[in-house]
Amino acid sequence: MSDSGEFDLIANYFTHRWPSRDDVVLGIGDDAAILTPAENSQLVIATDTMVADVHFDQQTPARAIGHKIAAVNLSDLAAMGAEPAWLSLALTLPKVDEEWLNGFSHGLREICEYYDCQLIGGDTTKGPLSVTVTAHGFVPADHALRRDQAKPGDWIYVTGTLGDAGLALAAQQQRVQISDAHYRRVLERLYFPTPRVAIGQSLRDIASSAIDVSDGLLADLRHILKASNVGARLAVDELPLSMALTESVNEEQAIQFALTSGDDYELCFTVPESKRGVFDTLMSRHPAKPTCIGRLTNEPHKIRLEHDGERWQGQLEQHGYEHFRTA
Amino acid sequence: MSDSGEFDLIANYFTHRWPSRDDVVLGIGDDAAILTPAENSQLVIATDTMVADVHFDQQTPARAIGHKIAAVNLSDLAAMGAEPAWLSLALTLPKVDEEWLNGFSHGLREICEYYDCQLIGGDTTKGPLSVTVTAHGFVPADHALRRDQAKPGDWIYVTGTLGDAGLALAAQQQRVQISDAHYRRVLERLYFPTPRVAIGQSLRDIASSAIDVSDGLLADLRHILKASNVGARLAVDELPLSMALTESVNEEQAIQFALTSGDDYELCFTVPESKRGVFDTLMSRHPAKPTCIGRLTNEPHKIRLEHDGERWQGQLEQHGYEHFRTA
Repeated sequence: MSDSGEFDLIANYFTHRWPSRDDVVLGIGDDAAILTPAENSQLVIATDTMVADVHFDQQTPARAIGHKIAAVNLSDLAAMGAEPAWLSLALTLPKVDEEWLNGFSHGLREICEYYDCQLIGGDTTKGPLSVTVTAHGFVPADHALRRDQAKPGDWIYVTGTLGDAGLALAAQQQRVQISDAHYRRVLERLYFPTPRVAIGQSLRDIASSAIDVSDGLLADLRHILKASNVGARLAVDELPLSMALTESVNEEQAIQFALTSGDDYELCFTVPESKRGVFDTLMSRHPAKPTCIGRLTNEPHKIRLEHDGERWQGQLEQHGYEHFRTA
Repeated sequence: MSDSGEFDLIANYFTHRWPSRDDVVLGIGDDAAILTPAENSQLVIATDTMVADVHFDQQTPARAIGHKIAAVNLSDLAAMGAEPAWLSLALTLPKVDEEWLNGFSHGLREICEYYDCQLIGGDTTKGPLSVTVTAHGFVPADHALRRDQAKPGDWIYVTGTLGDAGLALAAQQQRVQISDAHYRRVLERLYFPTPRVAIGQSLRDIASSAIDVSDGLLADLRHILKASNVGARLAVDELPLSMALTESVNEEQAIQFALTSGDDYELCFTVPESKRGVFDTLMSRHPAKPTCIGRLTNEPHKIRLEHDGERWQGQLEQHGYEHFRTA
């Protein structure tokens, strides 16, 4: 079946008045895009997929899906200390739904505009609703943040607050009751996460490792511990929690959300003692000011949770989920 | 639900004994891959998706899906004259099926090995079966093949033979009856298309435009005509047809398949008169030797089909299909 009309229609949603960059020689419209990589830089590439009824449900606004599929990819770039540049989009749709396409492309375009990213191409196919973005960015050669360079004694930090997206999901699924005001606040965090792009870049010569919190703090921190062969001591009473979270559940539940629920897209990273003063000064006025939540130990892969310096007595339920993925 | 076991399982299919390249600083296993782009080169990026029950059916072997999702992307790079380097994979699976993953990863690894491509990362998620690959390659700066540089008088060429994949699909759907030997031959073309990577690169300083035949010769040639604002005269009696095709259907049907069925992944390109001698000599011994099938005219967007120099009297049914896609 030839869908030339539909083809033209969809291309318009993704080309008309979108941001364009000087390093894009040829964007959407040929077999492939042609790009000029930044000099003396390495390229950083991340891919993430969101599938209907797995990563979002029927009530998720299309604009949120468009924002979030870019945000989760830019969050991966941020965790590498990279500056975002180009996005490719693979969009699979059951049918051409103009209202949905309008919302989706609007959400995607807003975040592209904010971070000066250009959509350079992709593929739109018919099928069950799913969205994949591949994001491309740059770091000065050999200055990317990795997971495997952390050392015992390094301090553990996390940006923003943790557990908000998890609380929104729990409220949506009626596992917890929260006020309308708090619900609106945390739903915004679930639907429109902020990739910590600026902080990621400023960590380049400071952090010894970094990761973004997509699957939950403990699950993601474990990737650093495994890659760097270290352990961690976490002060659960130091975890940065929003008022929406602390006013909606008790302290133990709040800590559970902060430790195990995913989808926050904050950065978790480690800073060596020698860089700590510089770093704290640099970050003192940042709106998503990182909080120090613990320190790395020399007990490989072990995480010790403490409260007021004693072993934490709370229980951990598994709020987050983790998909089987290759990277 | 934590799927750590499944996660580890799947990563193994895509990391153990796969090809690795010197320009990959960090591959699968961090938030993103880190790559060193080739010097004095431009980057070429293509994305293609294949969805179950749309681009392939239940009987398609997993190995063929793994081969083909890479092949269709490398074909896009070939149509730009690019040298392939890195692939990202987004794989959505209803469940962890070891036999399927074995076949799929085998097919993908074979083609990565052949073209010296490295799988640099991706995302594996739960959901309806679908596969997206983003392929990255290089061209020397300002030497990429495009669609918009063709001129009236340029000769039109196509590699290999056309219509074989369409015949396989028609036979599979019992729209035509063909012999078992021919079926095996054309099914190989449908399942394991060969991206014309070497020819694409050798066209860099010769062709005035190029595209790969994914939607059918006429549909794809029209993209060149539109982008370059030219027309075309095609000699349908010059179309390169396989013995499998000419022995399975009558001449008119064979021409229909060659003109309108998709999935062949041959290259269609144009060569200026001044480069024709050099080009024919260069290609004389190539196994997928390009055939000259017509010439560009100055009647924008018009395609005139001729047989023995007269207007072709055959009818065109639409065998191919075209998805609504952005690039």
